[in-house]
Amino acid sequence: MSRIDGRTPDQLRPVTIERGWSKHAEGSVLISFGDTKVFCTASVTEGVPRWRKGSGEGWVTAEYSMLPRSTNTRGDRESVRGKIGGRTHEISRLIGRSLRAVIDYKALGENTIVLDCDVLQADGGTRTAAITGAYVALADAITWAQRKKIIKPGRKPLTGTVSAISVGIVDGTPLLDLCYEEDVRAETDMNVVCTGDGRFVEVQGTAEAEPFDRKELNALLDLATAGCVDLTAFQNDALTRTLGE
Amino acid sequence: MSRIDGRTPDQLRPVTIERGWSKHAEGSVLISFGDTKVFCTASVTEGVPRWRKGSGEGWVTAEYSMLPRSTNTRGDRESVRGKIGGRTHEISRLIGRSLRAVIDYKALGENTIVLDCDVLQADGGTRTAAITGAYVALADAITWAQRKKIIKPGRKPLTGTVSAISVGIVDGTPLLDLCYEEDVRAETDMNVVCTGDGRFVEVQGTAEAEPFDRKELNALLDLATAGCVDLTAFQNDALTRTLGE
Amino acid sequence: MSRIDGRTPDQLRPVTIERGWSKHAEGSVLISFGDTKVFCTASVTEGVPRWRKGSGEGWVTAEYSMLPRSTNTRGDRESVRGKIGGRTHEISRLIGRSLRAVIDYKALGENTIVLDCDVLQADGGTRTAAITGAYVALADAITWAQRKKIIKPGRKPLTGTVSAISVGIVDGTPLLDLCYEEDVRAETDMNVVCTGDGRFVEVQGTAEAEPFDRKELNALLDLATAGCVDLTAFQNDALTRTLGE
Amino acid sequence: MSRIDGRTPDQLRPVTIERGWSKHAEGSVLISFGDTKVFCTASVTEGVPRWRKGSGEGWVTAEYSMLPRSTNTRGDRESVRGKIGGRTHEISRLIGRSLRAVIDYKALGENTIVLDCDVLQADGGTRTAAITGAYVALADAITWAQRKKIIKPGRKPLTGTVSAISVGIVDGTPLLDLCYEEDVRAETDMNVVCTGDGRFVEVQGTAEAEPFDRKELNALLDLATAGCVDLTAFQNDALTRTLGE
Amino acid sequence: MSRIDGRTPDQLRPVTIERGWSKHAEGSVLISFGDTKVFCTASVTEGVPRWRKGSGEGWVTAEYSMLPRSTNTRGDRESVRGKIGGRTHEISRLIGRSLRAVIDYKALGENTIVLDCDVLQADGGTRTAAITGAYVALADAITWAQRKKIIKPGRKPLTGTVSAISVGIVDGTPLLDLCYEEDVRAETDMNVVCTGDGRFVEVQGTAEAEPFDRKELNALLDLATAGCVDLTAFQNDALTRTLGE
Amino acid sequence: MSRIDGRTPDQLRPVTIERGWSKHAEGSVLISFGDTKVFCTASVTEGVPRWRKGSGEGWVTAEYSMLPRSTNTRGDRESVRGKIGGRTHEISRLIGRSLRAVIDYKALGENTIVLDCDVLQADGGTRTAAITGAYVALADAITWAQRKKIIKPGRKPLTGTVSAISVGIVDGTPLLDLCYEEDVRAETDMNVVCTGDGRFVEVQGTAEAEPFDRKELNALLDLATAGCVDLTAFQNDALTRTLGE
Repeated sequence: MSRIDGRTPDQLRPVTIERGWSKHAEGSVLISFGDTKVFCTASVTEGVPRWRKGSGEGWVTAEYSMLPRSTNTRGDRESVRGKIGGRTHEISRLIGRSLRAVIDYKALGENTIVLDCDVLQADGGTRTAAITGAYVALADAITWAQRKKIIKPGRKPLTGTVSAISVGIVDGTPLLDLCYEEDVRAETDMNVVCTGDGRFVEVQGTAEAEPFDRKELNALLDLATAGCVDLTAFQNDALTRTLGE
Repeated sequence: MSRIDGRTPDQLRPVTIERGWSKHAEGSVLISFGDTKVFCTASVTEGVPRWRKGSGEGWVTAEYSMLPRSTNTRGDRESVRGKIGGRTHEISRLIGRSLRAVIDYKALGENTIVLDCDVLQADGGTRTAAITGAYVALADAITWAQRKKIIKPGRKPLTGTVSAISVGIVDGTPLLDLCYEEDVRAETDMNVVCTGDGRFVEVQGTAEAEPFDRKELNALLDLATAGCVDLTAFQNDALTRTLGE
Repeated sequence: MSRIDGRTPDQLRPVTIERGWSKHAEGSVLISFGDTKVFCTASVTEGVPRWRKGSGEGWVTAEYSMLPRSTNTRGDRESVRGKIGGRTHEISRLIGRSLRAVIDYKALGENTIVLDCDVLQADGGTRTAAITGAYVALADAITWAQRKKIIKPGRKPLTGTVSAISVGIVDGTPLLDLCYEEDVRAETDMNVVCTGDGRFVEVQGTAEAEPFDRKELNALLDLATAGCVDLTAFQNDALTRTLGE
Repeated sequence: MSRIDGRTPDQLRPVTIERGWSKHAEGSVLISFGDTKVFCTASVTEGVPRWRKGSGEGWVTAEYSMLPRSTNTRGDRESVRGKIGGRTHEISRLIGRSLRAVIDYKALGENTIVLDCDVLQADGGTRTAAITGAYVALADAITWAQRKKIIKPGRKPLTGTVSAISVGIVDGTPLLDLCYEEDVRAETDMNVVCTGDGRFVEVQGTAEAEPFDRKELNALLDLATAGCVDLTAFQNDALTRTLGE
Repeated sequence: MSRIDGRTPDQLRPVTIERGWSKHAEGSVLISFGDTKVFCTASVTEGVPRWRKGSGEGWVTAEYSMLPRSTNTRGDRESVRGKIGGRTHEISRLIGRSLRAVIDYKALGENTIVLDCDVLQADGGTRTAAITGAYVALADAITWAQRKKIIKPGRKPLTGTVSAISVGIVDGTPLLDLCYEEDVRAETDMNVVCTGDGRFVEVQGTAEAEPFDRKELNALLDLATAGCVDLTAFQNDALTRTLGE
Repeated sequence: MSRIDGRTPDQLRPVTIERGWSKHAEGSVLISFGDTKVFCTASVTEGVPRWRKGSGEGWVTAEYSMLPRSTNTRGDRESVRGKIGGRTHEISRLIGRSLRAVIDYKALGENTIVLDCDVLQADGGTRTAAITGAYVALADAITWAQRKKIIKPGRKPLTGTVSAISVGIVDGTPLLDLCYEEDVRAETDMNVVCTGDGRFVEVQGTAEAEPFDRKELNALLDLATAGCVDLTAFQNDALTRTLGE
């Protein structure tokens, strides 16, 4: 069986990670997984939310949003409707949790980093691209804060790396990194967030059409784990380049 | 190691399922998992949302909410704050998806069933109790609609049963059906939704403190699968009793 | 003339008051007036709203809400619509005023008690059941706060008892404690809140179909006053039982 | 005892009713009760809300609002806060119910009349002035609709007249038509809405400081009934003048 | 060519400015430009918004609103819709900027003045009438604050006067002070805010139907400048009268 | 005097216009004025808003928004705050009006085009860049609709071209195309929208610090008119390139 875009079942779409896309943000990345493009910025502010004051610990949070015409048909702006939909809430929370999994709050000190992930163009996998790109923006923001001594010398708030990928079963075949057309047809859909050392931060599998069994779950986890190894390499590669290159 | 309430690691809390708790709703259940109590009603209306009209297919959706003093300290009402929080959205969507996994929309016909799951008292596992109880309310509502001929004779909208349970790793030990105190201390937290024939509808695992590996994931899935077998028995037992008993 | 449910015109529906229905709240009651069931919790917090700080005086307030399927046809959740309707506001304010009528703010000290009254099942008279039940929850919460020394020793914040009942004219006959079917048909509808010593806290009479004259008003007030005497007895009886009986 | 402004206990403040205050509205009145000034407009539209379509019956509704600086200290605009407060809701509903009490929906036909009551200056009794003024605006709007044949010839939608007044007990003395300073000091506060033939449409009595007994209630009702007789005369007098005089 | 109401192209509608229209506000004006009537109040409070604290400087802001039936057909209340429309926002901001143009913040000291401009009746030019009236209310409020020593002796927060007028091109002819009917038909519409010494504070020209050229722009500015000279005279005249005359 | 970035007073910042930036939208442009970058998409839908149905005429509207970290310090998302601010409303309305000025609604037919202008990076002049870029996206969308026969053959909905630029007086010198730092220091600030044939669509001048006189206004208009001639050339140049180049 060959996929819509000719990939093998275990193949990622082309991944690009461009750093330094914003002159204002402390960290910024334009990431693409094929035609999915997400703009991620990391904003550092000194101080923490009220409920965390005096703890000596920092905070990391995220907001996800789609531009109204990032999709095939234009969607209403959530600002115009006056409320945020359930899907947006869910993904914002997922991104925040995923990045906090590799943060040492003590080392961060009483500073807050907000990750904004705005989808410029959507073609499936926006949340996984967002997590993968946000990690790179976060890493840059932390480097910036260390250089500015906002984070104390010698402290390393990042305890590891994190990336994410979608997997799913389409026409009975487990596939890696679904594009929109595959996603719509998937019987089962799973988003997996992994650390660079191959452990899980989040596993979210949903039976879209048909409940799935343990064997299928295992096949999907195998695919996802391998995909995240590749993504980790892309992240590390991007971060070793000099900013501006 | 013994648990806070003396249970073994693979033991559910006491489960009770009382049907017919509302004189108005077409299906209604008060379910308890230990001190967690959720009131589930199923409301049948003829007709479907606009986007589904003329399809010949029905719809099932859910809304979850916590009473302000269902928790240890009083929370603000979402109606008073004027917006629904991300957690509420997320759980409402999860409950809806879980129940739709066992629905044949064609057999349901152009009818809508809304599941309301209101938490009267919370002690961990409110979403899993809600799914487990909502299934029973849904089954009663479908029986009612069949008797009223709102669902056409001979049609069987339910394609199976569904239940849910939480599992987690606390102090390195995988535990079934976490109470609030255990939930707070869990390193990894997972909610699993299963069909009665042992397949997965949803698997949502989150590393709260420490990423988890494949072996831990497997241990948690084993526990959850066994727990759902027990819950399915409780559901079937409740549904075989005459309503009012 | 006999009533729908066989009662005499001056007869209450069966009243039950169950205390201790929540393990979290400082006071909690499940009250029923016939098929109307309201869950009332009283939550104590130290401190008062900003506008009252430094006054040495406490505050008591209330929030009323109906579960979406407490009524015969499902209503939208106010949290989902994003705003609270006029009727909800009106009843919340009425409950708060009614309970504040028997509170000595100085004796309460700078503490706040919030009464949450959530209607689980509605069959007329939800606001009067809520006031009557909330009083019992409030009394239990005050006892709790006295025991915890949050209220200073020797202080008695409760200056009396309060209960409420609906009355109305149906087909020309004044009736006590209208059920939903009677309420819909009433020409005049009145809610009366009384103290245990027979004085009025609130009198709210509305001509639903036909303006009413002074004679009819007097007949309704006579009925209501007698009804509140009975309710006061039910409250006192409930409060003399040991919690947990 | 003499009152703050030298009135006797049973004396109204000076009442003025100016009709035709808007060139756009079908009925419009600037009413004053002493320093309380309310601008009332009645807007006629053909058609009725969806839930009433095809019934052959009309609808009358009201909206009340205070200009931000109608009071001694400026209040926030409800449009800026994004939600309507409980008090505003409550009064809007009261005004609507009061005017519907003198409407024959069948005679009105499928037309809607909206009464807008905007308080330009507040000095106590804004809701009673609003009802009293809105009646006059409503009468003018109905005359206009009859002349335009929007209401069918020979049909009389108004079944009577309606006015309203506040009464209260201040320092133990029952007083008619409380100004703001008296209202603040009242132990008991009551708003009474009467038809021109002396019957009650609404009776709303509230113990602000001290519960009240039956004797006090009777004294207040006597005062209010007499006050409404005077207000009815002012309304009739205003309506007999030619518009524009 | 003669205008709808018989005016010459460069003629204002009759202007009236009544001061002291509110007993509560520190400054208040009912201004009319023909049938357009706007009620302007100026409210003084000691203190400034948080972002300005400790600066030693004051703040002036404005809120504009239309009563629902100020127009020919009734509009929804923004408080009921739960949000403020773009036009309202835009005009409120314009009024605030216009008045701040003649304020010396240092001389005002840490005090805030809020201008509320509520349109009682609309017939074109509501924003220009609002600015022109608000200036007079502001001047009265400042005089009041000087007398009360809220503004320090010898300080003059007003650095000049400000007024505003609309101009437009209708059927090819530039006209001053458009009424609603002219406004609707205008090809180009311009609002001009001037200081008393003939300089511009705001120039907002919009091509409604047809782009306009430099010559037309100049003709409109000439008209507007002359109109503001007249309005300044009306303002000064109103302010020289004793309040209450 | 030399400017912050070395430009002459009448010099634009570098302008780039990249077409085809979205695979979904019917027209899309990434425009930059120096460091200001705005992503403009044009979305075509058949049909018009309800109030325009049956008119045979189309509609064009716009929505403007800033990404939270497009500015130097992160701003709250309007979707999270639940309401759109006045500035956003004002600019969205301005963009819509500006583009409608070159649309022939009859030729467009009953189709709607929505322009979304999302600021990715802000450095002054975001609204003028948005208008200038949105025109190019609009032109591409119209070409697309003509090719798809959604617009009838032979019809030309575009009656001209439109672009916009900011001008202002800084330290007494009139300057073209202000960057953020200049904008903050400007005494007077003006946004001018011109058609390609040199006429005005909008002229919005605001005295930020000091009222401005006729001579200054004229100098600013001269600068802006010349700037728009250059922008028109950039637009035409971009549109003559083959899409994808």
